[in-house]
Amino acid sequence: MAAMKIKGVIPPMVTPFKENGDVDYQLHAENMEKWNEDKLAGYLVLGSNSEAVYLNEEEKLELIKITVETAKKDRLILAGTGMESTRETINLTNKAAKLGAHAALILTPFYYGGKMNDEALVQYFTDVADNVDIPVLIYNVTKFTHINISVKAVEKLSRHPNIVGMKDSSGNIPQLVQFQSVIPESFNLMVGTASAWYPALTLGIKAGIMALANCAPNECALVQEEFEKGNEEKAREIYKRVFPVNQAVTATYGIAGLKYACDLIGYKGGFVRRPLLELKEEEKEKIKEILVKAELM
Amino acid sequence: MAAMKIKGVIPPMVTPFKENGDVDYQLHAENMEKWNEDKLAGYLVLGSNSEAVYLNEEEKLELIKITVETAKKDRLILAGTGMESTRETINLTNKAAKLGAHAALILTPFYYGGKMNDEALVQYFTDVADNVDIPVLIYNVTKFTHINISVKAVEKLSRHPNIVGMKDSSGNIPQLVQFQSVIPESFNLMVGTASAWYPALTLGIKAGIMALANCAPNECALVQEEFEKGNEEKAREIYKRVFPVNQAVTATYGIAGLKYACDLIGYKGGFVRRPLLELKEEEKEKIKEILVKAELM
Amino acid sequence: MAAMKIKGVIPPMVTPFKENGDVDYQLHAENMEKWNEDKLAGYLVLGSNSEAVYLNEEEKLELIKITVETAKKDRLILAGTGMESTRETINLTNKAAKLGAHAALILTPFYYGGKMNDEALVQYFTDVADNVDIPVLIYNVTKFTHINISVKAVEKLSRHPNIVGMKDSSGNIPQLVQFQSVIPESFNLMVGTASAWYPALTLGIKAGIMALANCAPNECALVQEEFEKGNEEKAREIYKRVFPVNQAVTATYGIAGLKYACDLIGYKGGFVRRPLLELKEEEKEKIKEILVKAELM
Amino acid sequence: MAAMKIKGVIPPMVTPFKENGDVDYQLHAENMEKWNEDKLAGYLVLGSNSEAVYLNEEEKLELIKITVETAKKDRLILAGTGMESTRETINLTNKAAKLGAHAALILTPFYYGGKMNDEALVQYFTDVADNVDIPVLIYNVTKFTHINISVKAVEKLSRHPNIVGMKDSSGNIPQLVQFQSVIPESFNLMVGTASAWYPALTLGIKAGIMALANCAPNECALVQEEFEKGNEEKAREIYKRVFPVNQAVTATYGIAGLKYACDLIGYKGGFVRRPLLELKEEEKEKIKEILVKAELM
Repeated sequence: MAAMKIKGVIPPMVTPFKENGDVDYQLHAENMEKWNEDKLAGYLVLGSNSEAVYLNEEEKLELIKITVETAKKDRLILAGTGMESTRETINLTNKAAKLGAHAALILTPFYYGGKMNDEALVQYFTDVADNVDIPVLIYNVTKFTHINISVKAVEKLSRHPNIVGMKDSSGNIPQLVQFQSVIPESFNLMVGTASAWYPALTLGIKAGIMALANCAPNECALVQEEFEKGNEEKAREIYKRVFPVNQAVTATYGIAGLKYACDLIGYKGGFVRRPLLELKEEEKEKIKEILVKAELM
Repeated sequence: MAAMKIKGVIPPMVTPFKENGDVDYQLHAENMEKWNEDKLAGYLVLGSNSEAVYLNEEEKLELIKITVETAKKDRLILAGTGMESTRETINLTNKAAKLGAHAALILTPFYYGGKMNDEALVQYFTDVADNVDIPVLIYNVTKFTHINISVKAVEKLSRHPNIVGMKDSSGNIPQLVQFQSVIPESFNLMVGTASAWYPALTLGIKAGIMALANCAPNECALVQEEFEKGNEEKAREIYKRVFPVNQAVTATYGIAGLKYACDLIGYKGGFVRRPLLELKEEEKEKIKEILVKAELM
Repeated sequence: MAAMKIKGVIPPMVTPFKENGDVDYQLHAENMEKWNEDKLAGYLVLGSNSEAVYLNEEEKLELIKITVETAKKDRLILAGTGMESTRETINLTNKAAKLGAHAALILTPFYYGGKMNDEALVQYFTDVADNVDIPVLIYNVTKFTHINISVKAVEKLSRHPNIVGMKDSSGNIPQLVQFQSVIPESFNLMVGTASAWYPALTLGIKAGIMALANCAPNECALVQEEFEKGNEEKAREIYKRVFPVNQAVTATYGIAGLKYACDLIGYKGGFVRRPLLELKEEEKEKIKEILVKAELM
Repeated sequence: MAAMKIKGVIPPMVTPFKENGDVDYQLHAENMEKWNEDKLAGYLVLGSNSEAVYLNEEEKLELIKITVETAKKDRLILAGTGMESTRETINLTNKAAKLGAHAALILTPFYYGGKMNDEALVQYFTDVADNVDIPVLIYNVTKFTHINISVKAVEKLSRHPNIVGMKDSSGNIPQLVQFQSVIPESFNLMVGTASAWYPALTLGIKAGIMALANCAPNECALVQEEFEKGNEEKAREIYKRVFPVNQAVTATYGIAGLKYACDLIGYKGGFVRRPLLELKEEEKEKIKEILVKAELM
C-alpha cells in the first residue's frame, strides 16, 4: 500500500436538512460543487459537524455516495464511520469503502468512558484497522466524547500499517507536540480546529480538518499557503482575522451557527435536526457582525 | 390514561453475548425465567447496563420482544429507547410500544452537550412525549452522558401528561431532594443506583432501577420491604452489606464485572461486546471475594 | 485520653466584618451569646464560612480567644487551623490549643493538588496529629479544595489515636457510606452540609457542622431530635422545609447570602471581606422570600 | 510612569529548604549568582514553584530582600504577592515594593472559587492596582487555582494604568490568541509554561516565566534568540528537545522533580517543604534519563 500523505485543508462538512428534518441531499450536492472550486485538499463526510449521530445508516451511506460522485478528481474523501461497537464500526467502514471513501476517520468509543482506557482503545482501533478495507485515522475529540486518547496509546497505534493518522480536535498545542514526539514520520497528525491552525503549522503540522473550512475554506487554505511561502506575518494576520468567526461557529453557537454562517457566505447550511435548535434572531445578528468584521461578507 | 405508579425494584438488564459477539437471546430468556421468580416490580430492557449503544435496531427489537413474551404477568416492562435525534427516538419508542413495552426510559441526548441546555432538553422531551404511544420516563445519567438535567427543566417536564417519571442515576441525594420539591405527587422519581437506595427510601422514594438488581434482586427488594415494615435497622444492614458489591459491579469493574457476578450467582451474564473487555483473572478473584463477603455466594 | 464523642449540630461560624473590612469582634461575641441559647453542641471557629483564608494569624487567635471565653460551658469548641504547610498547621493548632480549643478541624492541603495523593495526605495528617496538643479532625471539602480524600486514606488515618473524626462536606451520601464501612466505631464521621443532614441521620451519623446552623440552628437540631424520637416524618418535614434556605446560603449566594440571612433572622452577619462582594438588592429580596417561605422569618 | 516592557525568560525561582524544613537562604543566594550568569531577563520570587503557600511572611520578605540584593543590575525583579484577601495582598505587595521588587505578580484569589466571577476579579485587581506602589501583573494559573480568568475581565483590567501584564500558565494557545485580541499593545502578555514557549513566540509573545528556566535557563532563552534571528528550525529543535524535561519537572514530578533536576544540573534545588514529598529513587533515575536525553547533563 502506498503511503497516504495528507496536506491541506479539509472541511468536516455540515449536513443540510429541510425544515421537516429530512436530509436535503440536493443542497449537499450544491455545496460540493462550490467547495470543488475552493482550495481544499479533500472532504470529510460524517464528521462531528455533520450531525452524524442524528443520521441513520441509509442517510449516512447516501451522503457518502453523493460526496464520492460529486467530489473533484484527486481530492481525498474521508468518511466518519466510528460507531460505539467494534463490529458496527467495521461494518459501516467497509460499506463506506465500497462506496468509494478513501479513508475512515474513527471516533474513540466513549459511552462507557470509564472503561475506555489505553488497553481498550488500542484493542479497538487494532481490531478495526485489521478488518477494514481502507486506511484508518483516529479521531480524538474530547469536547464531545470526554475521552482524551493518551500519548502512549497513539504511540502504539501509529505503528499499525493501516492506521495512517489522527485528527486531534483538542486545540491543545503542547499535547500536539507530545503526539509528534512519538509518531513515525509517515503518520498524518492533523489539527481539528481552526483555533490551533497557525501555531500547528509553525510546529510542522501539514493538514487541518476544521469546522471553519465549511464557510471560509480559502482563508483557512491561505493561512497555510502564506506560511509555507515564508509570509508568516500575512499568514498570522489571516489566522487572527478569522479566529473570532471560528469561536462563533464552534464554541459559542455550535452547528446552528456554522450553518447560518454558511448561508450568509453563499454555501448551503440548511436547517439543523432536532434536538438541536435553530439560532434566535439576536444570535443571527451577532454572527453577521462577526462575519463582516472578519471581512467574510 | 390511568396514572402509572411505579414501586419496587427493577433491573436494568444485562444483555448476554456469545463469545463471537452475537446476542445470546436464549440466555436472556433464561435470565427472564429466573428473574420472574425474584421479588421484582418489572424489567428495564435496553438500559445503560445492556450495552444498548452497541446494539443495532434489529437486536434491540428482538430483545424487547423476548422480554415482553417471557415477563411474568403484571410486571412493568420499560424499554430504553433514547437515541440522539428526536425523530429516531420517536421511531424506536413507537416500535417498542407496538411490541408491548409499557413505558420508555429516555436518555438525555448528549453528543452536542454544550447545546443541550434547558431549552433544548425541554423541547426534546416534549416533542418525544407528544409523539409516542406509551408514557415517557426521563433518564438522567451524568456518568455516561456528562449532562445533568436541571431542577428547572424537570419541574417543567414533570407537568407533561405523558412524562410520568425520571430515573436519576447520579446517586446525589441532595439533588434528589431538589427534584422532589418541584414535581407533582404523581411523578415517579426513581433512583438509578443501589448506592443511594436506602437513603432514597428514607426520603420517600418508592422505586429503584439498579444494576445490582441483576445479580442481587431479592436483597435490593428486601431493603425496601424491611424499611416499609419499619425495620430500618434490618433494611440498613442489608443495604450496607451489598453496598461493596454495587461498587464492584458499577464503578470499579463495570458491565464485565456485573456480568461475572451474575454468572457466579446463577444468572447468565455472558460475554461483553467489544470494545468492552472481559475481566482479567485477578479481577474475577476480587469479585468472588466481594460476593462471598456480602453473603451472595 | 478519653474518647471524644461528638453528637449534635455545630455552626461553622461566620466572621462579621465592619464596613472598612476590620473584624467586628463585638458582633462575634453577640452572636455567641445568642447561639449559647440555641440547641447547639458546640462551635467551629475558622471554618470555611468564616472567611478564614482572609484572616491573618492575629485575627484568627483573637477569634478563638473570644469563642472560648464566651461559649456556654460543656460545649465543644473546634478551631479550623489547617494551613498549607505541615509546620504552619502544627504551629497554629498548638496556639489554638493553648487558647482553649478542644479539637482542630484540619483541611486537606490543596494548592499542589496533583501531588496531594494518599501517601502525601496520610503523611501530612500523621505528622500533624503526632505533633499537636489536641485531637485532630480531618476536613474534606472538595468544593473549595478540589481534593477528595480517598476511602483508603481515611481508613488508615482513622486508626491514629489522635485523629478522632472527619467532617465530609461533599454531600455525597454513598461516599459517606463508604467512609462508614472502614472507620472504627470511635471515629466521629460528621456531615458538613445541611443538604445531607436527614439522610445522614438515617445512616447513623450523629453530628453535623453546617453553614445553615449559623442562622437556623434550632431547625437543624430539631431534625435530629425528632428523628431520634422516632418522628421521622416530622424530622423530614423540617429538613425539606429549610433545604432551600441551605441552597441559598451556600451554593447560590455563598457567604454574603449566609450573612444576610443571619442579619434578617436576628444574628449578626456583618459585612464580607473583599474580594467577596456584598449581595445586590435583588439577591437580598430573593433571600428574604426564601426565608419567609421556610418560616424562618 | 514609563511603560514597562518585558522581554525574555524569567525563572519562577524554587525555594531551597534544608532537611529540617527551614528555608536555606544561602542556597538561594548561590542560585542567584549562577542565574546572574545566564541569559535571563529577570527573576520571579514567590511564584508557584517557590512553595510560597508554605512560607510565612517573614520568610517571604527575606527571600525578596536577598533576591533584590543579589540580582544582576538591570534585571527585572517580580514578586508573587497575591494573598486571598484584598487587604493582605495590598499589604504584602507594598512591603515587597519597599524592599525593591519592580512589579508584583498577583494570583487570582480562588478559595471561594464559585464567587470569583468577572465582577469580583475585576474589582479585586482594580482595588489592588489602585493601592500598591508598583505595577501589577495578573497571574492566571488554572492548574492550581481552578479559576480561569475570562477574556472579558482581562480586556477591562488591561486598561488599568497600573496593571501592566499577565502571566497565563494554561498552555492554552488558542486562549492566548483570544487574550491578544483584546489587550492594548503596551500590555505584557506572557506564557507561564515552557510547553507553550515556541508556539507563543510565533504568535508574537515576547516573554515567558517558566519552571523549566530554573534548571535550563539558557535553552529557554535560546529558543527565543534563534526564533528572533529567523532560525525557526533551530528554535523549534531546542524547544522540542527540552519539552520532555518540562513535562517531567511540572506535570509528572512537580516541584520535587524540578528541584532534583536543578541539583543534577548544578543549581541548588534543596529539599521540598512538607506536605510535599521528596522523589523516590526510581523517580530520580527517570529524571536523570530525561535530562541526559535532552542533553542537559
